[in-house]
Amino acid sequence: MVENLTEEILEMLGNESRRRILNLLSKKPCYVSEISYSLKMAPKVVLDHLDKLEKLGIVSSYEEGRRRYYSINRNLRVEISITPHRFIASTVSETPELEIDEFIKNMENLLKTPAGSLREIYKALQEFEEVERQFSEILGAVSLKFNEMFERFLTEIEKEVEDELERLVLLGITKGADTPFKISEEYGISYMGVIKALKSLENRNIVEKLENEDVWRIKC
Amino acid sequence: MVENLTEEILEMLGNESRRRILNLLSKKPCYVSEISYSLKMAPKVVLDHLDKLEKLGIVSSYEEGRRRYYSINRNLRVEISITPHRFIASTVSETPELEIDEFIKNMENLLKTPAGSLREIYKALQEFEEVERQFSEILGAVSLKFNEMFERFLTEIEKEVEDELERLVLLGITKGADTPFKISEEYGISYMGVIKALKSLENRNIVEKLENEDVWRIKC
Repeated sequence: MVENLTEEILEMLGNESRRRILNLLSKKPCYVSEISYSLKMAPKVVLDHLDKLEKLGIVSSYEEGRRRYYSINRNLRVEISITPHRFIASTVSETPELEIDEFIKNMENLLKTPAGSLREIYKALQEFEEVERQFSEILGAVSLKFNEMFERFLTEIEKEVEDELERLVLLGITKGADTPFKISEEYGISYMGVIKALKSLENRNIVEKLENEDVWRIKC
Repeated sequence: MVENLTEEILEMLGNESRRRILNLLSKKPCYVSEISYSLKMAPKVVLDHLDKLEKLGIVSSYEEGRRRYYSINRNLRVEISITPHRFIASTVSETPELEIDEFIKNMENLLKTPAGSLREIYKALQEFEEVERQFSEILGAVSLKFNEMFERFLTEIEKEVEDELERLVLLGITKGADTPFKISEEYGISYMGVIKALKSLENRNIVEKLENEDVWRIKC
Protein backbone atom coordinates (compact mmCIF):
# COMPACT_ATOMS: atom_id res chain seq x y z
CA MET A 1 0.00 0.00 0.00
CA VAL A 2 1.41 3.33 -0.99
CA GLU A 3 -0.12 6.62 0.13
CA ASN A 4 -0.43 9.84 -1.77
CA LEU A 5 2.47 11.96 -0.52
CA THR A 6 4.70 8.92 -0.82
CA GLU A 7 3.53 8.38 -4.40
CA GLU A 8 4.57 11.92 -5.23
CA ILE A 9 7.91 11.58 -3.49
CA LEU A 10 8.68 8.33 -5.30
CA GLU A 11 7.73 9.94 -8.59
CA MET A 12 10.05 12.82 -7.72
CA LEU A 13 12.94 10.60 -6.64
CA GLY A 14 12.62 8.46 -9.78
CA ASN A 15 14.29 11.26 -11.70
CA GLU A 16 18.08 11.28 -11.61
CA SER A 17 18.42 15.03 -12.15
CA ARG A 18 16.19 15.75 -9.18
CA ARG A 19 18.19 13.34 -7.02
CA ARG A 20 21.38 15.14 -8.04
CA ILE A 21 19.84 18.53 -7.25
CA LEU A 22 18.74 17.32 -3.80
CA ASN A 23 22.21 15.94 -3.21
CA LEU A 24 23.72 19.31 -4.05
CA LEU A 25 21.25 21.22 -1.88
CA SER A 26 21.97 18.92 1.06
CA LYS A 27 25.56 20.16 0.90
CA LYS A 28 24.68 23.83 0.88
CA PRO A 29 21.97 26.24 -0.34
CA CYS A 30 22.53 27.00 -4.02
CA TYR A 31 21.30 29.44 -6.65
CA VAL A 32 20.12 28.34 -10.08
CA SER A 33 23.21 29.11 -12.16
CA GLU A 34 25.37 27.40 -9.56
CA ILE A 35 23.32 24.20 -9.84
CA SER A 36 23.24 24.55 -13.58
CA TYR A 37 27.04 24.87 -13.75
CA SER A 38 27.72 22.13 -11.23
CA LEU A 39 25.39 19.52 -12.76
CA LYS A 40 25.81 20.62 -16.38
CA MET A 41 22.09 21.18 -16.87
CA ALA A 42 20.40 24.07 -18.64
CA PRO A 43 19.16 26.73 -16.15
CA LYS A 44 15.64 26.33 -17.55
CA VAL A 45 15.70 22.60 -16.74
CA VAL A 46 17.08 23.23 -13.25
CA LEU A 47 14.30 25.76 -12.60
CA ASP A 48 11.64 23.29 -13.72
CA HIS A 49 12.95 20.68 -11.31
CA LEU A 50 13.21 23.22 -8.49
CA ASP A 51 9.62 24.28 -9.14
CA LYS A 52 8.45 20.70 -8.77
CA LEU A 53 10.44 20.24 -5.58
CA GLU A 54 9.08 23.51 -4.23
CA LYS A 55 5.47 22.52 -5.00
CA LEU A 56 6.01 19.26 -3.14
CA GLY A 57 7.17 21.36 -0.20
CA ILE A 58 10.60 19.76 -0.11
CA VAL A 59 12.58 22.75 -1.25
CA SER A 60 12.13 26.43 -0.47
CA SER A 61 13.89 29.55 -1.62
CA TYR A 62 14.98 32.89 -0.22
CA GLU A 63 16.63 35.98 -1.63
CA GLU A 64 20.05 37.08 -0.52
CA GLY A 65 21.67 39.99 -2.26
CA ARG A 66 20.66 39.74 -5.88
CA ARG A 67 20.43 35.98 -5.76
CA ARG A 68 17.66 33.50 -5.02
CA TYR A 69 18.96 30.59 -2.99
CA TYR A 70 17.27 27.19 -2.82
CA SER A 71 17.52 24.81 0.11
CA ILE A 72 15.85 21.69 1.48
CA ASN A 73 13.32 22.69 4.11
CA ARG A 74 11.75 19.47 5.26
CA ASN A 75 12.55 16.50 7.39
CA LEU A 76 11.20 13.54 5.52
CA ARG A 77 11.84 9.90 5.90
CA VAL A 78 10.63 7.44 3.32
CA GLU A 79 10.59 3.74 4.13
CA ILE A 80 10.05 1.18 1.43
CA SER A 81 9.75 -2.51 2.05
CA ILE A 82 9.64 -4.92 -0.87
CA THR A 83 9.19 -8.54 0.14
CA PRO A 84 7.32 -11.56 -1.29
CA HIS A 85 4.27 -10.78 0.83
CA ARG A 86 4.40 -7.03 1.19
CA PHE A 87 5.06 -3.90 -0.74
CA ILE A 88 4.87 -0.95 1.57
CA ALA A 89 6.07 2.57 1.01
CA SER A 90 5.37 5.20 3.60
CA THR A 91 6.54 8.62 4.62
CA VAL A 92 7.34 9.69 8.14
CA SER A 93 7.49 13.41 8.49
CA GLU A 94 8.44 15.89 11.13
CA THR A 95 6.34 15.27 14.24
CA PRO A 96 7.50 12.40 16.37
CA GLU A 97 5.22 11.35 19.22
CA LEU A 98 5.74 11.81 22.91
CA GLU A 99 6.97 8.35 23.82
CA ILE A 100 9.53 8.61 21.11
CA ASP A 101 10.75 11.93 22.43
CA GLU A 102 11.48 10.22 25.69
CA PHE A 103 13.23 7.38 23.94
CA ILE A 104 15.38 9.87 22.07
CA LYS A 105 16.18 11.69 25.28
CA ASN A 106 17.48 8.48 26.78
CA MET A 107 19.44 7.73 23.68
CA GLU A 108 20.92 11.19 23.74
CA ASN A 109 22.07 10.65 27.30
CA LEU A 110 23.50 7.36 26.19
CA LEU A 111 25.43 9.15 23.52
CA LYS A 112 26.46 11.79 26.08
CA THR A 113 25.42 14.68 23.92
CA PRO A 114 28.13 17.24 24.36
CA ALA A 115 28.00 20.57 26.10
CA GLY A 116 29.02 22.29 22.96
CA SER A 117 32.45 22.48 21.41
CA LEU A 118 32.75 21.94 17.70
CA ARG A 119 34.72 18.73 18.17
CA GLU A 120 32.30 17.29 20.68
CA ILE A 121 29.31 17.94 18.49
CA TYR A 122 31.15 16.44 15.54
CA LYS A 123 31.84 13.26 17.48
CA ALA A 124 28.23 13.07 18.62
CA LEU A 125 27.05 13.49 15.03
CA GLN A 126 29.15 10.52 14.01
CA GLU A 127 27.81 8.42 16.85
CA PHE A 128 24.31 9.40 15.84
CA GLU A 129 24.92 8.23 12.33
CA GLU A 130 26.09 4.90 13.65
CA VAL A 131 22.96 4.51 15.79
CA GLU A 132 20.85 5.37 12.79
CA ARG A 133 22.61 2.76 10.69
CA GLN A 134 22.02 0.11 13.34
CA PHE A 135 18.35 0.96 13.64
CA SER A 136 17.97 0.77 9.95
CA GLU A 137 19.52 -2.70 9.93
CA ILE A 138 17.27 -3.78 12.75
CA LEU A 139 14.27 -2.64 10.78
CA GLY A 140 15.51 -4.65 7.83
CA ALA A 141 15.75 -7.70 10.07
CA VAL A 142 12.28 -7.11 11.53
CA SER A 143 10.97 -6.98 8.00
CA LEU A 144 12.68 -10.27 7.20
CA LYS A 145 11.27 -11.91 10.31
CA PHE A 146 7.82 -10.71 9.39
CA ASN A 147 8.21 -12.46 6.10
CA GLU A 148 9.28 -15.74 7.69
CA MET A 149 6.28 -15.57 9.97
CA PHE A 150 4.07 -14.93 7.02
CA GLU A 151 5.39 -18.08 5.37
CA ARG A 152 4.41 -20.04 8.46
CA PHE A 153 1.02 -18.43 8.35
CA LEU A 154 0.58 -19.62 4.76
CA THR A 155 1.54 -23.16 5.78
CA GLU A 156 -1.09 -23.06 8.50
CA ILE A 157 -3.71 -21.83 6.07
CA GLU A 158 -2.89 -24.77 3.80
CA LYS A 159 -3.32 -27.16 6.71
CA GLU A 160 -6.54 -25.72 8.11
CA VAL A 161 -8.30 -24.73 4.91
CA GLU A 162 -8.67 -27.08 1.96
CA ASP A 163 -10.70 -25.01 -0.46
CA GLU A 164 -8.49 -22.96 -2.81
CA LEU A 165 -10.91 -20.02 -2.91
CA GLU A 166 -11.28 -19.89 0.86
CA ARG A 167 -7.50 -19.83 1.18
CA LEU A 168 -7.31 -16.88 -1.15
CA VAL A 169 -10.02 -15.03 0.79
CA LEU A 170 -8.18 -15.65 4.07
CA LEU A 171 -4.98 -14.39 2.49
CA GLY A 172 -6.82 -11.30 1.32
CA ILE A 173 -8.10 -10.48 4.79
CA THR A 174 -4.65 -10.94 6.26
CA LYS A 175 -3.15 -8.59 3.71
CA GLY A 176 -5.61 -5.84 4.54
CA ALA A 177 -8.51 -6.40 2.13
CA ASP A 178 -11.14 -6.33 4.84
CA THR A 179 -14.43 -6.01 2.92
CA PRO A 180 -15.92 -8.55 0.49
CA PHE A 181 -15.80 -5.83 -2.16
CA LYS A 182 -12.07 -5.24 -1.72
CA ILE A 183 -11.31 -8.97 -1.67
CA SER A 184 -13.31 -9.44 -4.84
CA GLU A 185 -11.60 -6.50 -6.57
CA GLU A 186 -8.06 -7.17 -5.48
CA TYR A 187 -8.01 -10.94 -5.81
CA GLY A 188 -10.17 -11.31 -8.91
CA ILE A 189 -12.84 -13.46 -7.25
CA SER A 190 -16.55 -12.91 -7.96
CA TYR A 191 -18.37 -11.06 -5.17
CA MET A 192 -20.70 -14.02 -4.60
CA GLY A 193 -17.72 -16.35 -4.43
CA VAL A 194 -16.15 -14.18 -1.72
CA ILE A 195 -19.39 -14.11 0.31
CA LYS A 196 -19.73 -17.91 0.08
CA ALA A 197 -16.13 -18.43 1.21
CA LEU A 198 -16.53 -15.95 4.10
CA LYS A 199 -19.71 -17.69 5.31
CA SER A 200 -18.03 -21.07 5.23
CA LEU A 201 -14.99 -19.73 7.12
CA GLU A 202 -17.28 -18.01 9.60
CA ASN A 203 -19.12 -21.27 10.29
CA ARG A 204 -15.80 -22.89 11.14
CA ASN A 205 -14.93 -20.01 13.48
CA ILE A 206 -11.95 -18.92 11.43
CA VAL A 207 -13.18 -15.45 10.51
CA GLU A 208 -15.69 -13.06 12.00
CA LYS A 209 -17.59 -10.02 10.83
CA LEU A 210 -17.40 -6.76 12.76
CA GLU A 211 -20.75 -5.71 14.18
CA ASN A 212 -22.72 -3.28 12.03
CA GLU A 213 -20.03 -3.20 9.37
CA ASP A 214 -19.16 -5.22 6.32
CA VAL A 215 -15.62 -5.59 7.60
CA TRP A 216 -14.12 -9.04 8.22
CA ARG A 217 -11.16 -10.17 10.23
CA ILE A 218 -9.48 -13.34 11.39
CA LYS A 219 -11.04 -14.50 14.64
CA CYS A 220 -8.45 -14.47 17.37
CA MET B 1 24.80 10.04 -1.08
CA VAL B 2 22.97 7.44 -3.07
CA GLU B 3 24.52 4.10 -4.05
CA ASN B 4 24.09 2.18 -7.24
CA LEU B 5 21.48 -0.47 -6.39
CA THR B 6 19.46 2.21 -4.63
CA GLU B 7 19.66 4.42 -7.73
CA GLU B 8 18.20 1.61 -9.79
CA ILE B 9 15.48 0.88 -7.28
CA LEU B 10 14.48 4.55 -7.09
CA GLU B 11 14.42 4.71 -10.87
CA MET B 12 12.21 1.62 -10.85
CA LEU B 13 9.87 2.89 -8.14
CA GLY B 14 9.49 6.25 -9.89
CA ASN B 15 7.18 4.55 -12.36
CA GLU B 16 3.57 4.24 -11.28
CA SER B 17 2.84 1.16 -13.38
CA ARG B 18 5.70 -0.72 -11.81
CA ARG B 19 4.53 0.28 -8.34
CA ARG B 20 1.08 -1.05 -9.18
CA ILE B 21 2.54 -4.31 -10.48
CA LEU B 22 4.60 -4.75 -7.31
CA ASN B 23 1.53 -4.04 -5.24
CA LEU B 24 -0.39 -6.74 -7.10
CA LEU B 25 2.43 -9.27 -6.82
CA SER B 26 2.69 -8.65 -3.08
CA LYS B 27 -0.90 -9.91 -2.82
CA LYS B 28 -0.31 -13.10 -4.78
CA PRO B 29 1.82 -14.46 -7.65
CA CYS B 30 0.24 -13.47 -10.97
CA TYR B 31 0.58 -14.34 -14.65
CA VAL B 32 0.87 -11.68 -17.34
CA SER B 33 -2.72 -11.60 -18.64
CA GLU B 34 -3.99 -11.45 -15.08
CA ILE B 35 -1.88 -8.36 -14.36
CA SER B 36 -2.81 -6.91 -17.73
CA TYR B 37 -6.54 -7.38 -16.99
CA SER B 38 -6.34 -6.17 -13.43
CA LEU B 39 -4.34 -3.00 -14.13
CA LYS B 40 -5.78 -2.33 -17.59
CA MET B 41 -2.34 -2.34 -19.24
CA ALA B 42 -1.37 -3.95 -22.53
CA PRO B 43 0.29 -7.37 -21.98
CA LYS B 44 3.32 -6.16 -23.92
CA VAL B 45 3.74 -3.24 -21.51
CA VAL B 46 3.29 -5.49 -18.48
CA LEU B 47 5.96 -7.84 -19.83
CA ASP B 48 8.38 -4.95 -20.35
CA HIS B 49 7.95 -3.85 -16.75
CA LEU B 50 8.27 -7.42 -15.47
CA ASP B 51 11.49 -7.82 -17.48
CA LYS B 52 12.94 -4.74 -15.82
CA LEU B 53 11.90 -5.96 -12.38
CA GLU B 54 13.37 -9.39 -13.11
CA LYS B 55 16.69 -7.91 -14.27
CA LEU B 56 16.89 -5.92 -11.05
CA GLY B 57 16.41 -9.23 -9.22
CA ILE B 58 13.24 -8.08 -7.49
CA VAL B 59 10.83 -10.34 -9.32
CA SER B 60 11.23 -13.92 -10.49
CA SER B 61 9.00 -16.25 -12.45
CA TYR B 62 8.12 -19.93 -12.51
CA GLU B 63 5.93 -22.13 -14.70
CA GLU B 64 2.88 -23.85 -13.33
CA GLY B 65 0.66 -25.73 -15.73
CA ARG B 66 0.68 -23.76 -18.92
CA ARG B 67 1.20 -20.47 -17.17
CA ARG B 68 4.22 -18.43 -16.13
CA TYR B 69 3.72 -16.88 -12.72
CA TYR B 70 5.60 -13.84 -11.46
CA SER B 71 6.31 -13.11 -7.82
CA ILE B 72 8.49 -10.88 -5.66
CA ASN B 73 11.56 -12.82 -4.58
CA ARG B 74 13.58 -10.40 -2.53
CA ASN B 75 13.58 -8.82 0.86
CA LEU B 76 14.59 -5.27 0.30
CA ARG B 77 14.32 -2.26 2.47
CA VAL B 78 14.97 1.19 1.11
CA GLU B 79 15.45 4.09 3.49
CA ILE B 80 15.44 7.64 2.27
CA SER B 81 16.13 10.63 4.43
CA ILE B 82 15.62 14.13 3.06
CA THR B 83 16.57 16.88 5.46
CA PRO B 84 18.19 20.34 5.16
CA HIS B 85 21.62 18.87 5.76
CA ARG B 86 21.35 15.38 4.38
CA PHE B 87 20.00 13.49 1.45
CA ILE B 88 20.60 9.81 1.99
CA ALA B 89 19.06 6.88 0.22
CA SER B 90 20.24 3.40 1.00
CA THR B 91 19.17 -0.18 0.58
CA VAL B 92 19.27 -2.81 3.27
CA SER B 93 18.97 -6.28 1.86
CA GLU B 94 18.63 -9.76 3.18
CA THR B 95 21.51 -10.48 5.55
CA PRO B 96 21.15 -8.99 9.00
CA GLU B 97 24.17 -9.22 11.28
CA LEU B 98 24.63 -11.39 14.32
CA GLU B 99 23.92 -8.85 17.04
CA ILE B 100 20.72 -7.97 15.33
CA ASP B 101 19.68 -11.60 15.21
CA GLU B 102 19.98 -11.65 18.95
CA PHE B 103 18.00 -8.47 19.29
CA ILE B 104 15.28 -9.94 17.12
CA LYS B 105 15.25 -13.09 19.21
CA ASN B 106 14.63 -11.03 22.31
CA MET B 107 11.95 -9.08 20.57
CA GLU B 108 10.33 -12.26 19.39
CA ASN B 109 10.21 -13.53 22.94
CA LEU B 110 8.75 -10.23 23.92
CA LEU B 111 6.03 -10.68 21.35
CA LYS B 112 5.57 -14.27 22.54
CA THR B 113 5.81 -15.76 19.08
CA PRO B 114 3.15 -18.41 18.97
CA ALA B 115 3.49 -22.19 18.95
CA GLY B 116 1.62 -22.28 15.75
CA SER B 117 -2.11 -21.98 15.24
CA LEU B 118 -3.36 -19.80 12.43
CA ARG B 119 -4.93 -17.32 14.84
CA GLU B 120 -1.83 -17.06 17.00
CA ILE B 121 0.42 -16.39 14.06
CA TYR B 122 -2.06 -13.84 12.75
CA LYS B 123 -1.99 -12.00 16.03
CA ALA B 124 1.80 -12.07 16.12
CA LEU B 125 1.92 -10.71 12.60
CA GLN B 126 -0.18 -7.76 13.66
CA GLU B 127 2.00 -7.13 16.68
CA PHE B 128 5.03 -7.28 14.43
CA GLU B 129 3.59 -4.64 12.16
CA GLU B 130 3.03 -2.41 15.16
CA VAL B 131 6.64 -2.84 16.30
CA GLU B 132 7.82 -2.08 12.81
CA ARG B 133 5.74 1.09 12.70
CA GLN B 134 7.18 2.24 16.02
CA PHE B 135 10.73 1.59 14.90
CA SER B 136 10.12 3.51 11.78
CA GLU B 137 8.86 6.48 13.79
CA ILE B 138 11.86 6.27 16.07
CA LEU B 139 14.13 6.38 13.06
CA GLY B 140 12.30 9.45 11.85
CA ALA B 141 12.87 11.10 15.22
CA VAL B 142 16.54 10.14 15.24
CA SER B 143 16.87 11.73 11.86
CA LEU B 144 15.23 14.91 13.16
CA LYS B 145 17.53 15.01 16.16
CA PHE B 146 20.52 14.60 13.90
CA ASN B 147 19.40 17.64 12.05
CA GLU B 148 19.03 19.73 15.19
CA MET B 149 22.51 18.71 16.23
CA PHE B 150 23.80 19.68 12.84
CA GLU B 151 22.31 23.14 13.27
CA ARG B 152 24.22 23.48 16.52
CA PHE B 153 27.34 22.34 14.75
CA LEU B 154 26.89 25.09 12.17
CA THR B 155 26.50 27.67 14.93
CA GLU B 156 29.74 26.48 16.49
CA ILE B 157 31.53 26.71 13.16
CA GLU B 158 30.36 30.31 12.82
CA LYS B 159 31.69 31.06 16.28
CA GLU B 160 35.06 29.34 15.93
CA VAL B 161 35.86 30.11 12.31
CA GLU B 162 35.62 33.55 10.80
CA ASP B 163 36.78 32.98 7.26
CA GLU B 164 33.89 32.12 4.91
CA LEU B 165 35.98 29.75 2.81
CA GLU B 166 37.32 27.91 5.84
CA ARG B 167 33.76 27.47 7.09
CA LEU B 168 32.75 25.92 3.81
CA VAL B 169 35.74 23.57 3.86
CA LEU B 170 34.88 22.46 7.42
CA LEU B 171 31.29 21.87 6.36
CA GLY B 172 32.52 19.81 3.42
CA ILE B 173 34.64 17.55 5.63
CA THR B 174 31.74 17.05 8.02
CA LYS B 175 29.46 16.07 5.17
CA GLY B 176 31.84 13.42 3.94
CA ALA B 177 34.01 15.21 1.38
CA ASP B 178 37.27 14.04 2.92
CA THR B 179 39.91 14.88 0.29
CA PRO B 180 40.88 18.35 -1.00
CA PHE B 181 39.86 17.18 -4.46
CA LYS B 182 36.35 16.21 -3.35
CA ILE B 183 35.90 19.43 -1.38
CA SER B 184 37.02 21.45 -4.38
CA GLU B 185 34.70 19.55 -6.74
CA GLU B 186 31.61 19.40 -4.54
CA TYR B 187 31.76 22.89 -3.08
CA GLY B 188 33.04 24.79 -6.07
CA ILE B 189 36.20 26.10 -4.42
CA SER B 190 39.54 26.17 -6.26
CA TYR B 191 41.90 23.36 -5.26
CA MET B 192 44.51 25.83 -4.04
CA GLY B 193 41.86 27.64 -2.00
CA VAL B 194 40.92 24.37 -0.29
CA ILE B 195 44.56 23.57 0.51
CA LYS B 196 45.09 27.03 1.98
CA ALA B 197 41.99 26.75 4.16
CA LEU B 198 42.95 23.26 5.34
CA LYS B 199 46.44 24.42 6.32
CA SER B 200 45.05 27.32 8.27
CA LEU B 201 42.53 25.08 10.06
CA GLU B 202 45.28 22.54 10.73
CA ASN B 203 47.45 25.21 12.33
CA ARG B 204 44.61 26.04 14.71
CA ASN B 205 44.19 22.35 15.57
CA ILE B 206 40.69 22.14 14.12
CA VAL B 207 41.38 19.58 11.41
CA GLU B 208 44.02 16.94 10.88
CA LYS B 209 45.32 14.92 7.95
CA LEU B 210 45.43 11.14 8.11
CA GLU B 211 48.95 9.75 7.93
CA ASN B 212 50.11 8.73 4.45
CA GLU B 213 46.81 9.76 2.89
CA ASP B 214 45.31 12.90 1.49
CA VAL B 215 42.27 12.42 3.70
CA TRP B 216 41.27 15.07 6.22
CA ARG B 217 39.03 14.96 9.25
CA ILE B 218 37.93 17.09 12.17
CA LYS B 219 40.39 16.68 15.02
CA CYS B 220 38.62 15.19 18.01
